[in-house]
Amino acid sequence: MTPSKADTVFKPHNKDGGISSIVSLPVRAEDLATLLGGELIGNPDVPLSTLGSIEDGSAETLTFIRSSNYAKFWADSLCGCALVTKDIEVPGHNPNTRALILVEDADEAMVMILEAVNPKRARPAPGIHSSAVVDPEASIDPSAAIGPGCTIGAGATIGKGAILMPNVTIGVNAHIGQDTILEPGVVIEDRCIVGSRCHFGANCVVGTDGFGYLPPTDSRPAIKVPQIGTVEIGDDVEFGACVTVDRARFGATTIGDRTKIDNQVHVAHNCVVGKDTLIAGRTTLGGSVTIGDFAMIGGAVVLNDQSVVGKHAKVAGGAIVLESVPDNETYVGMPAMPARQALLNYGAFRELGTFVRKVEKRLKKLESD
Amino acid sequence: MTPSKADTVFKPHNKDGGISSIVSLPVRAEDLATLLGGELIGNPDVPLSTLGSIEDGSAETLTFIRSSNYAKFWADSLCGCALVTKDIEVPGHNPNTRALILVEDADEAMVMILEAVNPKRARPAPGIHSSAVVDPEASIDPSAAIGPGCTIGAGATIGKGAILMPNVTIGVNAHIGQDTILEPGVVIEDRCIVGSRCHFGANCVVGTDGFGYLPPTDSRPAIKVPQIGTVEIGDDVEFGACVTVDRARFGATTIGDRTKIDNQVHVAHNCVVGKDTLIAGRTTLGGSVTIGDFAMIGGAVVLNDQSVVGKHAKVAGGAIVLESVPDNETYVGMPAMPARQALLNYGAFRELGTFVRKVEKRLKKLESD
Amino acid sequence: MTPSKADTVFKPHNKDGGISSIVSLPVRAEDLATLLGGELIGNPDVPLSTLGSIEDGSAETLTFIRSSNYAKFWADSLCGCALVTKDIEVPGHNPNTRALILVEDADEAMVMILEAVNPKRARPAPGIHSSAVVDPEASIDPSAAIGPGCTIGAGATIGKGAILMPNVTIGVNAHIGQDTILEPGVVIEDRCIVGSRCHFGANCVVGTDGFGYLPPTDSRPAIKVPQIGTVEIGDDVEFGACVTVDRARFGATTIGDRTKIDNQVHVAHNCVVGKDTLIAGRTTLGGSVTIGDFAMIGGAVVLNDQSVVGKHAKVAGGAIVLESVPDNETYVGMPAMPARQALLNYGAFRELGTFVRKVEKRLKKLESD
Repeated sequence: MTPSKADTVFKPHNKDGGISSIVSLPVRAEDLATLLGGELIGNPDVPLSTLGSIEDGSAETLTFIRSSNYAKFWADSLCGCALVTKDIEVPGHNPNTRALILVEDADEAMVMILEAVNPKRARPAPGIHSSAVVDPEASIDPSAAIGPGCTIGAGATIGKGAILMPNVTIGVNAHIGQDTILEPGVVIEDRCIVGSRCHFGANCVVGTDGFGYLPPTDSRPAIKVPQIGTVEIGDDVEFGACVTVDRARFGATTIGDRTKIDNQVHVAHNCVVGKDTLIAGRTTLGGSVTIGDFAMIGGAVVLNDQSVVGKHAKVAGGAIVLESVPDNETYVGMPAMPARQALLNYGAFRELGTFVRKVEKRLKKLESD
Repeated sequence: MTPSKADTVFKPHNKDGGISSIVSLPVRAEDLATLLGGELIGNPDVPLSTLGSIEDGSAETLTFIRSSNYAKFWADSLCGCALVTKDIEVPGHNPNTRALILVEDADEAMVMILEAVNPKRARPAPGIHSSAVVDPEASIDPSAAIGPGCTIGAGATIGKGAILMPNVTIGVNAHIGQDTILEPGVVIEDRCIVGSRCHFGANCVVGTDGFGYLPPTDSRPAIKVPQIGTVEIGDDVEFGACVTVDRARFGATTIGDRTKIDNQVHVAHNCVVGKDTLIAGRTTLGGSVTIGDFAMIGGAVVLNDQSVVGKHAKVAGGAIVLESVPDNETYVGMPAMPARQALLNYGAFRELGTFVRKVEKRLKKLESD
Repeated sequence: MTPSKADTVFKPHNKDGGISSIVSLPVRAEDLATLLGGELIGNPDVPLSTLGSIEDGSAETLTFIRSSNYAKFWADSLCGCALVTKDIEVPGHNPNTRALILVEDADEAMVMILEAVNPKRARPAPGIHSSAVVDPEASIDPSAAIGPGCTIGAGATIGKGAILMPNVTIGVNAHIGQDTILEPGVVIEDRCIVGSRCHFGANCVVGTDGFGYLPPTDSRPAIKVPQIGTVEIGDDVEFGACVTVDRARFGATTIGDRTKIDNQVHVAHNCVVGKDTLIAGRTTLGGSVTIGDFAMIGGAVVLNDQSVVGKHAKVAGGAIVLESVPDNETYVGMPAMPARQALLNYGAFRELGTFVRKVEKRLKKLESD
């Protein structure tokens, strides 16, 4: 179950258009339990050939049970085996026909298996493709791979083992850290810094000018405020596709180590995003937003200019944060408010039309009595 | 009025910068009626040289009336002729000077005319451009056109008549179906499957890793959950520009035949989007969202992780769906609720501040009596 | 402090990965005051070597005070000097150690300084890069710069001094005006017109087909409505990254002179956006939206199909405009309503759950009395 072996577990491409995305795991339940250091409950001989969700699998499917929400589906599931976080009760298990493997953490065990069978992405070989345009004053580590159609500006540095997929553009004096991977069409503009082991999805843009204008007046049009700052992105940061990060007016827009940002997120100028933060798809960070370490921001959230999200804070998907979310708090709704308060208010809102009518009627009755 | 003739109805480009986007239709009203098999009411000799909207046209403009909402503008319109869906009453028509052409469906008739005069897009000729980088193990149909700057990975297949505009990247073992068109900068990542006759707008990205992480804990950073699945897109699917579709954790993110998706929509991992569905611009599909066949989703909608939109259901623009929309229902608002309920609640909300004050006052008065 | 000198004020790139984004301004406070024609209050010898914000600076930092909100931080700020709009009171100033420079407008003075020290972007030299693919029938001004990997279609014209960064695609008969700059990956599709002195961020797409379909019925699938119109963009228009603008069904989607549009904004077909308008990030314009001159639209706003925003109107971030915003008005919320009304309603909403409970209780008490 080494990665090189894993490359072969996907059926080769079929010219009729069919490609199997089913992962073959030719392993007995008992052997898997041994590999994972888990405890087997049930039939040791269940053959496991695929991974799947608890609702969709078949007799040879390995699935996972991370909470009692999943456990309740086990009795009716067709899956032959499940990885189970060891303290979770799994009702309706038949140990004669099926198998459970109890592990410390089902999620982490599943990640190990996924990692093992994950087909390696094809990457350009080290070296500079003949169609890439590299400024003679750029500095490219010989172990880096620069794909077709890439352009690299003067003074840029590309670190050891970095991989630039096709049509990536790197501006003047930009820096790409060691082992960082930039997918096709990524643009890193002048002077921006990307750390080591980062991974940016296709068509991301880092270093666009911040949206700074003195608004138009009666006597003159809008004046662009030069955005002379940069973007500084830490190590182990991951972006989905089409993420945009604006450069700072002065200083730097910064994104901390190990932070993960999903597709189509927009980070405006002078934002300071902490470390170990997760930001889901389509979220909008206005100018000068601050997000603390270990925050979790849902999808399609709007963080107003200058708003602050504290450390370990959570913001639910679709929320609009006007001012701030304190450390460790969970905020919900528009405007975002503590989750409990939001729950009450939105609960009341769902019946507001009826409530207004009834109150009106009851007040009138009382007033006429 | 054949397509090849239509190519010439746009005035050639003027180097001073002026380009006319006015379509010439050198046709008499009566001749057009005959071509369409419609019934002429009015002046057969109205010369029609342009298409336009009922508010903006001139004496030689052909417009269309698809509902009584449009019909009421006819009396004051300057347009010389209108295509009318035959059951619609058109008040104030002067048959001596102007013409109506009654057809089964004015929309469909207008589409036929637009199609006829639509200037054909310039496309690269069949064959592989000399600057494209194609892996020797890729399989490209000789009738396909591979534009400048494209990169195609090992094991990828490009079907008959497919067109890749400049700077498209196709990953390893990906499949592009027959007659599919990918606009500039599109990225289809490893192992993703795109059906036949699809059309994806510029800079779309299909196959980015889903946003799956085990959140960081006190003792370890976030762990990436490998996203080993794929994306499978049916036939006749159309995307606007900058659409992103994530690959599944395992299995496939799927989009059904004939579904149309507008610009900047984000489809997260493991979504299952049905057939014949329309999704308007900037809508966000969270992870594992299910959308039934024939659904219509407005713009800037947010569909929460795991939410379900039923068959033939509609979701209004800007709505946030937390859990589900039943088949055939129309949902509106945040959180999304049945349209009628939303109308009542938002109506009440518009006056909520005043209502609260007045109720407070009336209650106090009653309590003090 | 000429622009050419400004190129040298950034420390050269350090191969260890460190790049300074601190701007050196080797200037005495008094000399700066003279240069700006401002009045010096305080120590003339304060040496100014960097620009920074009032909270973050050090003894050699120049900052700016544009309102009393900033002025109140001055006493505790570490910055050595501030540009101050001359009517603003600045409490706690110590003229022995620090300096204030009074000017007509601190914002405009700061823009002048930023402009002077702004490192010039590296741009390709005039001429056509050898890897660009230019149709022989395209017309390219000799002073224009066409970067690597660009593709330019037949009949396209590229104006004097225009700059196309790498991998830009220009369609057939499209027009790019004088001195316009298109960042990497921008796509301008067939027949679209871009004015002079425009600047579009990386991966913008102009001219995608509008999202127009006759919805599917029981007897036939959705029918695409050909989008035969164009996009016409005025002079001095600026776009952030990943902006998408759809072509019109017929006629043109238009964007007026001097309008500025932030990252990831989506402009649907047949929109008419006025002059001198500012639209912040992630805003969605539905089909046929009209925006008047001098409007200001916040981030993540949704403008419903056919909605109208008046001249000099403002729409707050996150608002959803269903129908219209009158000239000169400020609208807020969902649905968008006059700011004052929204403030009242959202204020009441924040306590709605509690209000409903209390009203219920008080009514019951009154009814039982």
